[in-house]
Parts: sequence; structure tokens; C-alpha cells
Amino acid sequence: MKEKSVSPVVIKRLPRYYRYLGELLGKGVLRISSKDLSNLMGVTASQIRQDLNCFGGFGQQGYGYNVELLHTEMGAILGLDRGYKTIIVGAGNLGKALAKHSNFRKRGFNLIGIFDADKSLVGKEINGITVEHSDDMESFVKANHPHIAILALPKSAVEYEANRLVKLGVKGIWNFSYGELHLPDGVAVENVHLSDSLMTLSYKLTQLEDAEG
Amino acid sequence: MKEKSVSPVVIKRLPRYYRYLGELLGKGVLRISSKDLSNLMGVTASQIRQDLNCFGGFGQQGYGYNVELLHTEMGAILGLDRGYKTIIVGAGNLGKALAKHSNFRKRGFNLIGIFDADKSLVGKEINGITVEHSDDMESFVKANHPHIAILALPKSAVEYEANRLVKLGVKGIWNFSYGELHLPDGVAVENVHLSDSLMTLSYKLTQLEDAEG
Repeated sequence: MKEKSVSPVVIKRLPRYYRYLGELLGKGVLRISSKDLSNLMGVTASQIRQDLNCFGGFGQQGYGYNVELLHTEMGAILGLDRGYKTIIVGAGNLGKALAKHSNFRKRGFNLIGIFDADKSLVGKEINGITVEHSDDMESFVKANHPHIAILALPKSAVEYEANRLVKLGVKGIWNFSYGELHLPDGVAVENVHLSDSLMTLSYKLTQLEDAEG
Repeated sequence: MKEKSVSPVVIKRLPRYYRYLGELLGKGVLRISSKDLSNLMGVTASQIRQDLNCFGGFGQQGYGYNVELLHTEMGAILGLDRGYKTIIVGAGNLGKALAKHSNFRKRGFNLIGIFDADKSLVGKEINGITVEHSDDMESFVKANHPHIAILALPKSAVEYEANRLVKLGVKGIWNFSYGELHLPDGVAVENVHLSDSLMTLSYKLTQLEDAEG
């Protein structure tokens, strides 16, 4: 499979393909043309063919795509078959919500630890995992080598904790804190800036209001 | 201010400008050149000038931008001065986390109600607001006219609740459920697809792992 120099725009679309293919599978659809898939997803058929060609292409001319095969291959491209070990740092409401998010386990992510600096949370069980104190995180990471750390921390703590985890060998950081992280090369980072999303919604709303006068 | 036909890419950058300008203000920086702002944000100076020109421009040649003025103007463009009334539908962990998110109030959003279908949550107080039953949402919305509904609901409920709220006049939907909403024109929607973000991180991680062999 050729995966060199795939553009960030295509990468952003991969989870969407995976999502739509999963929904089709759930409805018992076994085969789909790029045209039908394009109508469903609201992108052009040639876009879909181009995107999938980045990964070697999966369609047979005139036969459309095998939905199950494409779903499995997409999952592999996204690394969902690698069983990435994941920890959550921060067991507040957001950390709890993420720990209980049913999709993550379904997508193949393996939650192995939850940590918090607040002693009143230590010992509590969330989705079968006991919250441990942040002080014990270092030895846990050294022993268990998680691939991904989910940071559901206050902004004041996130830069320090992210760098600490990266030094311990964690290569994937999913950051929910406001602000941008400055981390060394060779670390994969995804930021979920909730405030940015709400502000974008607010902007769209002002446009609607102003258009209506 | 000319705000016609601003491209979605520029719109996506607006909250980032607001965020960086707020940080500069917090550090007491009163004036910044487009060059310094571009270094800070990792975009080109000409990009910044182009972006801001979409809104009439704010810089004086050779003097740079007045940080406080630009921050305030950006806030107005984003609608943060409109005091949008907001409700949260779904008082589980995610709904709770969003209700307690300190940034939302700071950004000018006015949380006026929280609803859940689970009777065991009704009557509980979250950040000073008492959770009400979903059955009472209709009369609440008719009486109080919230602008934005934050949907922290299971996927099975979200399409129904979103359409119900839109019929009642809610014009802004912030959706946290997996899947895409099908809503009429004239409604502003922002989706936060957490699983998509995690899968994107996973993809980046596979690329790092495979590059290292």
C-alpha cells in the first residue's frame, strides 16, 4: 500500500469514510459505487476515487467497492487494528465522559489507565478502571508503554504533563486543553479546541441573524 | 464591515486569532506587527493581512495592529458580544463537563438551561443551573428563546431532538453525537466528532511507527 505524502485534507476525510462505511455495513449494504458513496457523503465521485487511490485504490471498474473490505482496509489504514494502549490524564467530567465513550473501545482503542492529581478522585472506578494518582503515572507508563495519552487537564497543567509523557515515550497526544502544545518532532498530536468550535458556531449564527435583519 | 462571502477556511481561523490575541493581551502586549503575529501563529504575514482585510482590515501601515482593538473587533465578528442564550441537552458526563467549561461564560455565552430525559438527574444542580426534564424543554424554549442548543446526547436521540429544537426556533446547534445531522437551511450547525479526531491521531501514530520501522 502506498501511503507516502498523503495530504492533510485527505487524512481528515479518512475517519469520515470509515464512519459512512460502518453505517452502510450496519444496514447490510455489501457493495457501493463511487457515485452512490459520493451522494451519501456529499463529495464528488472523482474525489473519492482520488482519495482511495492514495492508498492503492480498492474498486474494480464497473463493480463498485466491496463495503466490508473497504471498511476493514480503512480501519487498518487508520491503525484501528493495532490495539493502541491509551491512558487518560485528568478524571474530571470530561475525562470521565471520554473514558465512558463507547465508540473508543469499539474503534479498537484499549484504555489501560486513568490518572488525576486530585486525591479525592483516586481509587474511584470509571468503566472498570481505577483512577490512580498522577504521581504514580511515571512508573505506570514505564511498565505499560501506552501509545496514546488523552489530556483532559486544565490549561495550566497540560504543557508540563504532555512533555513529561513524551519524555517517557508516549508518541500520541490527544489534547483537549485550550491553547497549542509545543512538543518535539516525532510526536503525533491532535487538538480538540472546544471553544474554537463554539465560536465558529457563534460566527455562523451572527451571519444568519444579520441576513435576516 | 464587509463580511460577504468569507471563505470557510478563513472562518475556521477566526477563533484562533481571537485566542492568540487574548493571550497577547494577557501578557500586556498592546501592539503587534503582522510579521510577529504570523511567527506566533505559524501562518504567513500576507495570509494574516488577507484574512483581516475580509473584515475591512485593522492595521495601520507601519504601526502594526492594536491588540486590544483587534481582540474586541474579532470578538464582535464572532458574535461573542451578543450574549447568546444557550441550553445543554443531555446532562451526562459530557453535558456536565460542557456546563462547567469556564471558557464558555468567559466567551460571552449565557447558559440558561440544562435538560435530560433521565429522571434521576432532574433536580440536580450543575454550575448553578438545575437540570430539568426533557418533557419541560418545549415550554422552556418557547418562553426563553435560547439561540444555541448544545446536544450531548446518544446518537439514537440526537436527530429527533435537533429537529424538535429547530422547529421551536433554535438557530444554532452544537452537536457532539457521532454521525451527521440533517437539518433545514437557515440553521447553523457545528459538529464535534470526537471519534474522528481520535482516528486522525491514530493514523498519524501509524505513520510515525511505520517510519521508524
